[in-house]
Amino acid sequence: MLVAVPISDVDFQKKLQECKSKGADLVELRVDLFENKDPKHVLHIVNTARELGLGTILTVRSPKEGGREVPNRLEIFREVSPYSDYTDIELSSLDILPEVRKIVKSAGRTLIISYHNFDLTPADYILREVFREARRFGADVIKVAVMARSYEDTARLLCLGRQEEGKKILIAMGKYGILSRIGGFVFGSVITYAFLGEKTAEGQLSLDQMVELKKILL
Amino acid sequence: MLVAVPISDVDFQKKLQECKSKGADLVELRVDLFENKDPKHVLHIVNTARELGLGTILTVRSPKEGGREVPNRLEIFREVSPYSDYTDIELSSLDILPEVRKIVKSAGRTLIISYHNFDLTPADYILREVFREARRFGADVIKVAVMARSYEDTARLLCLGRQEEGKKILIAMGKYGILSRIGGFVFGSVITYAFLGEKTAEGQLSLDQMVELKKILL
Repeated sequence: MLVAVPISDVDFQKKLQECKSKGADLVELRVDLFENKDPKHVLHIVNTARELGLGTILTVRSPKEGGREVPNRLEIFREVSPYSDYTDIELSSLDILPEVRKIVKSAGRTLIISYHNFDLTPADYILREVFREARRFGADVIKVAVMARSYEDTARLLCLGRQEEGKKILIAMGKYGILSRIGGFVFGSVITYAFLGEKTAEGQLSLDQMVELKKILL
Repeated sequence: MLVAVPISDVDFQKKLQECKSKGADLVELRVDLFENKDPKHVLHIVNTARELGLGTILTVRSPKEGGREVPNRLEIFREVSPYSDYTDIELSSLDILPEVRKIVKSAGRTLIISYHNFDLTPADYILREVFREARRFGADVIKVAVMARSYEDTARLLCLGRQEEGKKILIAMGKYGILSRIGGFVFGSVITYAFLGEKTAEGQLSLDQMVELKKILL
């Protein structure tokens, strides 16, 4: 289980060092939340992270999946994805998904295709369809992050996800989903996310907590 | 999720108080490990625990499921089960199971029928058969504790157990099974076990750890 920490570009030097010293494996650059979205700046942060020994996930989350509008989105992928270990693109970003896939794959990097539902955990047949579509679009890793409205939703996501082929990231959001962040790896989830600084939503775990929990579980 | 702590009768006063003050819900009286197996003594410990506000599980584990030979086993159930919140009897103790069930049910108490496998996690069809048999014998709660040889075994137990009707206790033993002890409740497991003092097998969590983890997860 790799631990990823989403960061913006504010105080990035300090944050990267903190991630490294506390035991994170990856940083997720949430470029849609960056103050400076110049690809050169983003690439500089990718390189700084990698020099510190941190892997990188490049994410420019679209507004309809919880991110912000970024006019030069595709430009960022073109300039930075070849240098980032992972690039995360939403399954719903159909307009640019094929091109992003091409960029990522020709550079020999890893493509995460993601699906978010901040409202609920969809029915099983919809979740299965998400996995099927993401595979069809060439995902190396399929990320499914859905709001759990009950512990039952969390169990359902983990047990369904476990049966899907290939690498995946399974996240049940909200207070009922905390177990997925700690123990998703038992069900085949390869990356978990933890925060540095302040929690932005219920159910999230701090990097410190995550590292402690990893020691207990692994 | 109720937290149970197995105890013997050595220093029981001190142990019961420690269980209570640290936040356990139940104590499991492992009478097969008691120095004094006189039913009056066992009943005294049950009453002491209940006066402290702790629930009790009466267990006289049989040798073939990891316990010790107790010649007056049935006598202990007859004298003590009516006063214990739960009585745990192995599915394999076929000779006395019907009588123990009668004792427990006529007193309006809760019957746990348990199955242990210290070697491996049996195939799905065997696990399902265990649940079916335990239901047939009148279990109020079915306890399945099996050795996980991989994380996959743990996920399999939890996902299969989740689909079984009724109350259950799902424990994947060993280092790969720790998640079941922390997060079994997400899959419908109603009791988890933690130790006081010294770990007796890999994968077990201390009462202190369990209480901390509960705070994070619940």
